[in-house]
Parts: sequence; structure tokens; C-alpha cells
Amino acid sequence: MRIGILGVGTVGASVANILKDNKDIITARAGVELEPVIGLVNNLNKERNVSIKLTTDVDEILNDESIDIIVELMGGIEKPYEVVKKALEKGKAVVTANKALLAYHRYELQDLAGDTPFEYEAAVAGGIPIINALRDGLTANHIESIRGIMNGTCNYMLTKMINEGVDYHTILAEAQELGYAEADPTFDVGGFDAAHKLLILGSIAYGIDAKPEDILIEGIENIAPADIDFASEFNYSIKLLTIAKKVGTKIELRVHPVLISNDEMIAKVDGVMNGVSVIGDKVGETMYYGPGAGGDATASAVIANIVDIARRGKGSPMLGFESSHGENLTLMPKEEIQTKYYLRLKIEDKAGVLAKVSNIFADKNISIEKMIQKPLKNNCAHLLLSTHTCIEKDINEALKTLEDTSVVTDKPVMIRIED
Amino acid sequence: MRIGILGVGTVGASVANILKDNKDIITARAGVELEPVIGLVNNLNKERNVSIKLTTDVDEILNDESIDIIVELMGGIEKPYEVVKKALEKGKAVVTANKALLAYHRYELQDLAGDTPFEYEAAVAGGIPIINALRDGLTANHIESIRGIMNGTCNYMLTKMINEGVDYHTILAEAQELGYAEADPTFDVGGFDAAHKLLILGSIAYGIDAKPEDILIEGIENIAPADIDFASEFNYSIKLLTIAKKVGTKIELRVHPVLISNDEMIAKVDGVMNGVSVIGDKVGETMYYGPGAGGDATASAVIANIVDIARRGKGSPMLGFESSHGENLTLMPKEEIQTKYYLRLKIEDKAGVLAKVSNIFADKNISIEKMIQKPLKNNCAHLLLSTHTCIEKDINEALKTLEDTSVVTDKPVMIRIED
Ligand SMILES: NC(=O)c1ccc[n+]([C@@H]2O[C@H](COP(=O)([O-])OP(=O)(O)OC[C@H]3O[C@@H](n4cnc5c(N)ncnc54)[C@H](OP(=O)(O)O)[C@@H]3O)[C@@H](O)[C@H]2O)c1
Ligand SMILES: NC(=O)c1ccc[n+]([C@@H]2O[C@H](COP(=O)([O-])OP(=O)(O)OC[C@H]3O[C@@H](n4cnc5c(N)ncnc54)[C@H](OP(=O)(O)O)[C@@H]3O)[C@@H](O)[C@H]2O)c1
Repeated sequence: MRIGILGVGTVGASVANILKDNKDIITARAGVELEPVIGLVNNLNKERNVSIKLTTDVDEILNDESIDIIVELMGGIEKPYEVVKKALEKGKAVVTANKALLAYHRYELQDLAGDTPFEYEAAVAGGIPIINALRDGLTANHIESIRGIMNGTCNYMLTKMINEGVDYHTILAEAQELGYAEADPTFDVGGFDAAHKLLILGSIAYGIDAKPEDILIEGIENIAPADIDFASEFNYSIKLLTIAKKVGTKIELRVHPVLISNDEMIAKVDGVMNGVSVIGDKVGETMYYGPGAGGDATASAVIANIVDIARRGKGSPMLGFESSHGENLTLMPKEEIQTKYYLRLKIEDKAGVLAKVSNIFADKNISIEKMIQKPLKNNCAHLLLSTHTCIEKDINEALKTLEDTSVVTDKPVMIRIED
Repeated sequence: MRIGILGVGTVGASVANILKDNKDIITARAGVELEPVIGLVNNLNKERNVSIKLTTDVDEILNDESIDIIVELMGGIEKPYEVVKKALEKGKAVVTANKALLAYHRYELQDLAGDTPFEYEAAVAGGIPIINALRDGLTANHIESIRGIMNGTCNYMLTKMINEGVDYHTILAEAQELGYAEADPTFDVGGFDAAHKLLILGSIAYGIDAKPEDILIEGIENIAPADIDFASEFNYSIKLLTIAKKVGTKIELRVHPVLISNDEMIAKVDGVMNGVSVIGDKVGETMYYGPGAGGDATASAVIANIVDIARRGKGSPMLGFESSHGENLTLMPKEEIQTKYYLRLKIEDKAGVLAKVSNIFADKNISIEKMIQKPLKNNCAHLLLSTHTCIEKDINEALKTLEDTSVVTDKPVMIRIED
């Protein structure tokens, strides 16, 4: 299938590059080759790290009958609406990451698309497959609520304010320097970006056709250290939360900062990461966590939609691959596994024992990272230690030798460390 | 579409009941009615809370040409393998929650199924749509690793051991009493249940055809308070982790307890809950969290598969619904929202001010839950307080009145509390 990419910026360039870089696995999963053939840009002279043909003429792409899928990654609202509309009229499948477009035009676009695929996974929470979960994974449920942390800029700022006591204006300047916040940050810190995403989720969960103007949107601009102190005092965190909630036959859709208990899983989503908690009447709470932005993470979701479109008509292959995996992967034998290890040894508490034990490790090239010795009853002691990375075979041999050593009184216990 | 349910136990009964209870939304999402018509059981005399016809004769179901989908929820390995095979030979789509069956026979079943749908979302991590995420949501990625907490019994026990200092045998007895652990707990605490799930994920991520006997499986039986002390000392938690990891062209598949940093999102998955963290080469880390067992939660995943099968050939509807939503839901006006509120008031620090402020709240029937007063410079103070649940309209009116009151010196700040 041939793909035209409208907008070869942060996300568009990643889409073109990943389709090439990961062609092996993507083809094995899609069952067909997915070829990015042309990209639309404003400025042909800009330096970009992509190898597809570029054009400034959108009609060159839309009129190319060999192109099956249009990926809209331009940004904006009215221009992409017009272009996507034309693409659908020509029967081309469309994929977009454009939440603003959908916040305003999702129902018109649904009508225009009809049976033509129109997908938008990346528009909400970037790389997290939340549309997938909500639209396909939780279909058995009436959705009771959705609570999301869906703006990385705000979450980064609030996390810093809470953990480091920095004030709003200082952290905003820092976020701007790091590229986490725009020069005009209103769209993020004012809650509008999150609201666009919420409206999309509100449609999938409840079929609610609302626009940003219709719902409660507040930003994080007024949060001060005093509020964070109060929150901490009562075990609350402060988050910019998007909330969709069913109360009887009415649906609340709102975006605003909240105080939320630190015990809730969604409150543990920190920094630039996104998280979405969904409560279904049958499944209970499920939560989805991951990167909400970034070229590659967002492109991951865009490409999942492209693969989905390539699979239309036949469904996903049972074990994920149409043909073989594409790479030649084999199971690693157990003894080759490399990790760090924690060991608990019960030893005799007398001179020379530590040296004996240490020698056994040294013989196998196992180096110790941390160690605690604790006296036990009857002249024994616990030696609790962790190793640097070593090989499963070596640790097993060392354990065998330790077990056979008289100064080690019980069978040693080993637990691996996952770093 | 007509559905036969083989096994009407914990999960099977939930499937039958949810298909009836949530028929409105399921039909609106699937675009077709999904009718559970008959169930297979061992014992017709057992009391069960289902309204479908029951039989003990599996052939009565398999030979019924009006049945489109067979849902296998019997448990076991060879018997369901034989039955599912027959169903596929008759061209019936199959849905199962049986991880043991798949741990041993997934590749034979894939071959047998061919183009006939065969789905198994509930077999891994119960209600969490993790198969969906991995097979459809992350297709752009080479999977670098999957780390899962996929056995609720073990996670419940470890969480209790860590948080309450209970020892292994005490907590096992308690888990058995609560029904979280079986009379013979080996399958759970020995890591075998988690291993079955891991093998399924290993296929979807890496195309690895391994059996339980081929991989490293260790249980939690040897974990003692001394290990938990060591772990806590160095900011580790202890979890039974399932790990699939790519190292060069070799794939590690292993299940064992680990020490894992408390800072990792997956380490925050506590109690009976499950969580799966996936690292893709492009998207980075995404994590999926939710209930790994229970009749309704597991049935939620089974039904998602049934809906998926009903949608085959046409894909999921763009905004989630084939027709309208089924229920008549409307957007709640902003002023009707009910929640708790936190308020920051800057007040003059003198006698009578608190009474004045309190009266304003009382007039609007707003009752205060918590309050902190903190002196500021220039004879001012911060009044930080939270309310019990009240109505947005009332709080807004109170805020307006407060703002106009001379003893309140700055515009009050309000943040909602999400409980
Ligand atoms: N960045 C993220 O992390 C992220 C995450 C989720 C969703 N999104 C969404 O993805 C979309 C793209 O975001 P982005 O960050 O990739 O934007 P970007 O870096 O600004 O890229 C936009 C691209 O579109 C081209 N373009 C814009 N308008 C055009 C026009 N009228 N004619 C021709 N070319 C035009 C630009 O051309 P030039 O290069 O020549 O200027 C540029 O290549 C947006 O809808 C955004 O909301 C982004
Ligand atoms: N329970 C969970 O939370 C959960 C979670 C994930 C996956 N699963 C999987 O889902 C499957 C079902 O689990 P479950 O907990 O629902 O099991 P269950 O409560 O024991 O129910 C099994 C049902 O199958 C029937 N059955 C079993 N063998 C049969 C046979 N040979 N002929 C006729 N009927 C037979 C039983 O009939 P009687 O009622 O007459 O005995 C019973 O109705 C298992 O594969 C399990 O691993 C369960």
C-alpha cells in the first residue's frame, strides 16, 4: 500500500522513517508492504532527515490514484479539514494525529468517511493505544468514567512544582527552555489541548457531540505553593485531569486541575508521561500509561492505524504475524541469562567465613554491589548481598559451591534483580 | 450472531449475563445482536444464575449450524483442545480465556484456524486489553521487552508481605480463606500460571514457539522477611515478574520473583491487580493496568473478542458506535457538576473574619471538611480549606460573594478535588 504524508514535521518525518527502519516487522504484522512515497511541506528548502519525495502541491498527492492512504500531520483545523475531506471523496483511507481537527469536526468526518477507514489513535495520548483500548478492548462495558493525564507539559510542570517546590513562573520558563512548552504556552497550560482529547474520548465512550466551547476548561496558571502544601498535608497530588463521567443520563466533560489522592494509580503518573484511567461497569478500573508526545512515540500510533487499515477485511492475525516474524529469533538458553542477583546466605558468624564466601564469588567472576550482614541466634548470621550483572550459569555454580560449604548452614536463596 | 458457551462457571456465567445486561451498548458497538443461546456444563443440577439453555452434550452445540461463535471457558488442556478443534473444523469462530490451552497448543490452533477468527484476549491479564495493545496498538515497534505482573494471587501475597510484614505461610492461608488462592496453590505461587501467559505474549512479540518446560520458571515460595528488609533498605519492591526480553537475536522468557526499583511504574502495581509494561523501540514504555481475574472482568475481555469477530470485514466504527449510542445521554451543564472543592482565601487576620467567611459558605449550604489557617505578612492569613461534595453553581456563587467581601483581600483560588 502506498502512503502520502501531509506534513513532514516532527511526527510526519518519524512516520516516514519508522516505516523504513522497521519495515521487517511492520510488513510481517501487516501482511503487506507499507510504502511512504511522498510528503507535503510548506518549504522544500528546509533541512529534513527523510528520504521520501517532497512536494508543496497537495493536489499532486490527492490526485495520485496509486496512493491508498493519506496521513494528515500538518496541524491546524480548517486547512486539514478541507484536505482530508478531498481525500475521503477520492476514497482514500485517512489517518490523522490532529486532535484540534477532531475536537471540531469529528462527526462531519465520520459522516464523510462512511465505510472508508478514518483512524486517529495518535490524536489522544500520543503513543498510548487508548483509542484502541476504549473502542475495541472495552466494548462490553458501559463506561462509568475516564480520567486522564493527557498533557505532558502540564504534568511535567506540576510534578516539578510538587517535588522541587519550584513556583509556576520559574518552571514555565524552564519547560520553555527544554522545549516541553511552547513560546505561547496557553494551549497547553490553559487546558485546551487536553480538552480536545477529552472530547474525542467523550464521543467514543458516550457518543457526546460537544465542542470545546461547551465544556468546563480551566488551566494550571493559578496553582501556588500554598496549594501544594495543603495537598501534601492530606496525601493529595495536584494534576491537570480530563474527566468524562456518567451521572444518570448526564455526562460530565471537564478539564481542570484537581487534588487527587496519591493512592490512586493515575496520581502516580509523573513528569511528561500521560495516563488514562477508565472505569467500566463490568471490568472495573483499567489504566493506560505512556508517552503522550514526541515524534517517534506519536508516529508509533499513526503507523498502528496504517497497519490496521492494511488488515481491514481480514482482522489481525491470531498470533500477531501474517507470515513469519521477519527476524530470526530464538529462545535464549536459561544459563545464558544475564542479570543482577540478590542472595541470602545463612552463615556461621566467625572469623574467616566472609573470606571463604568472597573467594567463591571471585572464582566465578561475580562482583558484589551491596552487602548487609545481620547477626542471628546460635552464632549464625544472615549475609544479604546483591551482585553486579553476571551470568546465570556462574551464579548457579557459585550457589552450588556455597551450598556445599560447611560455613553456609542453610540452602542459599537467590532472587534476581530487575534493573 | 448466536453464541454457544462451553463452560458456564465463573467466567462463562458472567459472559452470558453481561451479554444480556449490557445488550444496549454492545449492540450499538458491534452493529449486530450478540445472543448467548446455549451453555455446556458438567452438572445440570448445579444452581447457577444464568438464563440460557444448558446441556451436557457438547455435540448438541457444535452441530448446531445456527451457532456462529463458540466461547471456550471450561478450563483444562486436552478436552478443550479437542472441542475447539471440532468447532474450527465446522467453521465456527472461537473465543477462549484458556491460557493453559494456548501455552501448549497455540501454533497448532493458529494453523487449524486459518482464516476463521480465533481470539483469546482474556487469557492474558484478564480484563486488561493487552493482546489488543500488543497485537494491534504497537505494531510499528520492535518489542524490546515486556515485563508483567500477571498473577494476582502472588501479587496480593507479596504486597501484604511487604506492607504488613506478614510471612509467606500466614499470608498464603489468608489468601486461601479469601478465595484469592486455591487449596493447591502451586499453579499460582509456583509461577506456572504466569508462565502460560508469558508464552502467549512471547509469541505475539517475538514469534517464539516455546512450551512451559522450555523456560525459566520460579515461584515465590522462598521469599522471607529478611529479603523484604534488604529490598526496602535499597528502595526495591519484590514482585513475581514475567519477563520477555530481546538481547541480540535471542529472546529471554522467564518468570521469577525480582527485586525491582520502587520508582518503576510496574512496581507500583499492588494487591490483586495486574500490570504489563511494554518497551517498544519507537514508542518507548507503555504500561497497562487492571484486574487480572474475576468473572466479570474476564468476561469483559471475552466479549470484546466477540464484538471484534462481529466487526470482522468492516473494522471498528470510527467513533465507536455503529448506530447511535443506545442510551440517550446529554452533556451535563457546567453549573450542575458536583464535586468537592479546595479553596485558598487570603484574608485579613483579625477577629470576626472567620465567622464572616463561614457564614458565606453556610448560606450556600457548603460544608467544610478540612481547614488550615496560616499567618502571612502584613496582618494577612491564608485560609486553606476543602469542602464536602457540593454543587458547582453554589461554590461559584460563594466565590463571587467572597471576592466582593472586604476581609478577603485577593481573588480566591479554587481547585476541585477528585475523590
Ligand atoms: N509533536 C507531537 O508530539 C504530537 C503528538 C500528538 C499529536 N500531534 C499532532 O500531529 C500533528 C503534527 O504535529 P507536528 O508536531 O509534527 O507538527 P510540525 O512539526 O509543525 O509539522 C507540520 C508539518 O506540516 C507541514 N505543513 C503545515 N501546514 C502546511 C500547509 N498548509 N501546506 C504544506 N505543508 C504544511 C509543515 O511544513 P514545513 O516543514 O515546510 O513547515 C511541517 O512539515 C498536529 O496535528 C499535532 O497536534 C503531535
Ligand atoms: N476465573 C477467572 O478469573 C479467570 C481469569 C482468566 C482466565 N480464566 C480461564 O477461564 C476458563 C474458565 O475459568 P472459570 O474460573 O470460569 O472455571 P470454572 O468456574 O471452573 O468453570 C468451568 C465450567 O466448565 C464446565 N466444564 C468443565 N469441564 C467440562 C466438561 N468436560 N464438560 C462439560 N462442562 C465442563 C463446568 O461445569 P460445571 O459447572 O457443571 O462443573 C463449569 O461450568 C479457564 O480456562 C481459566 O483459566 C479464568
